[in-house]
Amino acid sequence: MNTQQQRIRVVQWGLGAMGRGIAQLILAKDGLELVGAVDANPAYDGQDIGEVLGQDPVGVNVTNDPSMLLATTRIDVVTIATTSWVGRQLPDLKRILSSGINVVSIAEEMAAPEAQHPEIAAELDAVAREHGVSIVGVGVNPGFVLDLLVVTLTAGSQEVTRIEASRVNDLSPYGPTVFRTQGVGTSLAEFEAGVADGSIVGHVGFPESIALINDALGLGIDRVEQQITPIVSSVRREAGDLVIEPGQVAGCNHIASGYRGDAEVIRLTHPQQVCPEADGRSTGDYITIYGTPEIHLSTGPEIAGGIATAGIAVNTIPRILAASPGLKRVIDLPAPTALMGASAYLRR
Amino acid sequence: MNTQQQRIRVVQWGLGAMGRGIAQLILAKDGLELVGAVDANPAYDGQDIGEVLGQDPVGVNVTNDPSMLLATTRIDVVTIATTSWVGRQLPDLKRILSSGINVVSIAEEMAAPEAQHPEIAAELDAVAREHGVSIVGVGVNPGFVLDLLVVTLTAGSQEVTRIEASRVNDLSPYGPTVFRTQGVGTSLAEFEAGVADGSIVGHVGFPESIALINDALGLGIDRVEQQITPIVSSVRREAGDLVIEPGQVAGCNHIASGYRGDAEVIRLTHPQQVCPEADGRSTGDYITIYGTPEIHLSTGPEIAGGIATAGIAVNTIPRILAASPGLKRVIDLPAPTALMGASAYLRR
Repeated sequence: MNTQQQRIRVVQWGLGAMGRGIAQLILAKDGLELVGAVDANPAYDGQDIGEVLGQDPVGVNVTNDPSMLLATTRIDVVTIATTSWVGRQLPDLKRILSSGINVVSIAEEMAAPEAQHPEIAAELDAVAREHGVSIVGVGVNPGFVLDLLVVTLTAGSQEVTRIEASRVNDLSPYGPTVFRTQGVGTSLAEFEAGVADGSIVGHVGFPESIALINDALGLGIDRVEQQITPIVSSVRREAGDLVIEPGQVAGCNHIASGYRGDAEVIRLTHPQQVCPEADGRSTGDYITIYGTPEIHLSTGPEIAGGIATAGIAVNTIPRILAASPGLKRVIDLPAPTALMGASAYLRR
Repeated sequence: MNTQQQRIRVVQWGLGAMGRGIAQLILAKDGLELVGAVDANPAYDGQDIGEVLGQDPVGVNVTNDPSMLLATTRIDVVTIATTSWVGRQLPDLKRILSSGINVVSIAEEMAAPEAQHPEIAAELDAVAREHGVSIVGVGVNPGFVLDLLVVTLTAGSQEVTRIEASRVNDLSPYGPTVFRTQGVGTSLAEFEAGVADGSIVGHVGFPESIALINDALGLGIDRVEQQITPIVSSVRREAGDLVIEPGQVAGCNHIASGYRGDAEVIRLTHPQQVCPEADGRSTGDYITIYGTPEIHLSTGPEIAGGIATAGIAVNTIPRILAASPGLKRVIDLPAPTALMGASAYLRR
């Protein structure tokens, strides 16, 4: 048996912070072979992907133009990390699927594209089926902590009447872009203006997480409402060069509710802020399932977001390769799991 | 669309405590139709299953002899709850599969029958494929808390170096049979004699849970060792009529270790006792994943065992109906989830 020939051949599409993390992990996994990389940055064009990642060269070059790569290279799976929005990713996704290649996307909206873009979801499903391949969206959230983990926790539940889940994280490791979209360091007035003009967006993925839970359990959710409020600090907080004084905004409390008629059946909460511990709030993931039985779960600290998004993208590669053709969600596949050693990939 | 015709037709096989719970849940779910029940107890033969369950009659009779039922009734899935051991269940399983019927078993060893009985696993896989149906073993443990939940928790893990998981439960609600097999109320000498003569067995399912984790993650486990020790109470504990004095045995601490070479890569612990809180130990499920990222999860109290075993058996019914032919494990299927409302079943 020639193990080399059996390795899954993967292209990383998009080399931002997340895409670079995925590419590094692909290179580190025995069962995977990185056979190409695509990014729009002209500075990367023709560069060895290893060197772009700050590692030793690996003999695979990044390209700005995927035409040649798609036409001449045998590729099993593309992992794509270019945007949060399915509408923006659609042309690339159709191009990849039409080349007969399976796709794992970390675009937040791709976790359940039917939630906000049913026509795009139908189109992706049709294109994938036409070419005999499959496509799925994954990520730490949406795609894992506030949806897949929630539904898996109900595996033995006889009845579920209500679900509450919360993910409390610390934005301190992130940079100015994240701070800006979460309103970190703003005044109350600036925060309200930012929400009004769309520059402060909170979390992307709540409608998708609620769709996944609702569809997996059949809860009959007919309406999703979201609410963004400022987290006003009562203490001084320091994150790198940034100082939040008491009364300033440390982040964004984003809540989404799924209703069946007048009843709030699902409530997901994701307060994103710098240094929550400074104000007495522990980071972690918290899930409560009301019903039979009642279940209270917590993790502490929260499952690390950036690491886990790259991880689940790579762990899903053999799952999407083995899937039947079409558009899948993470709830439609056997759970992705950490895959250690080549054999764990090659068996799937 | 005639919803009545689309309901999944299920037979409950075995009407002990767990089988009765499963039958009640099948009757309560809109998407399922209980079309038969099998039990060896002569007192049940010909009795309405509703009345056997202490409910209103439902127009379906229990039978001691499944021949007529298998020959004349269209059955989609049998849920079977007769024993913990695959060897003992094998004749019934082959008979059901050979009738072209899918099977969900709660026999502990069926969670991963290849772990201890590879030849039986191969035989079941062959018989199922021959008849175009599928079979899976599930339960709260093995089948959920100390394996499926563990592997799902690694969905975003880049590396897993070691896993520790513990399930601390309270046996107080159980009866004399469970107390006896866990050594509750014995002296130290009686406990040791019970372990030696096989009457004190501890938990059934550790080799299966380790096989599921190892196979899902590819950890390279090559050896499983188990250890049973008495939980000697330091305080007086009362469970119903039973009194445990200080120095007496309150239950059984059962530990299983999965080794790769000399390294203990998985350690599962299941101390089963009455009134652990009396001795300062909280009930709950505890999972730690060492690696990247490190994850600490806990539930409190533990996910209720009897309820969740009946729940996962029923929640798995549409999963096994949709599965490709052959022997499956819970890690091979999309995660079972609580299914609320008929539509959640009928879509699958």
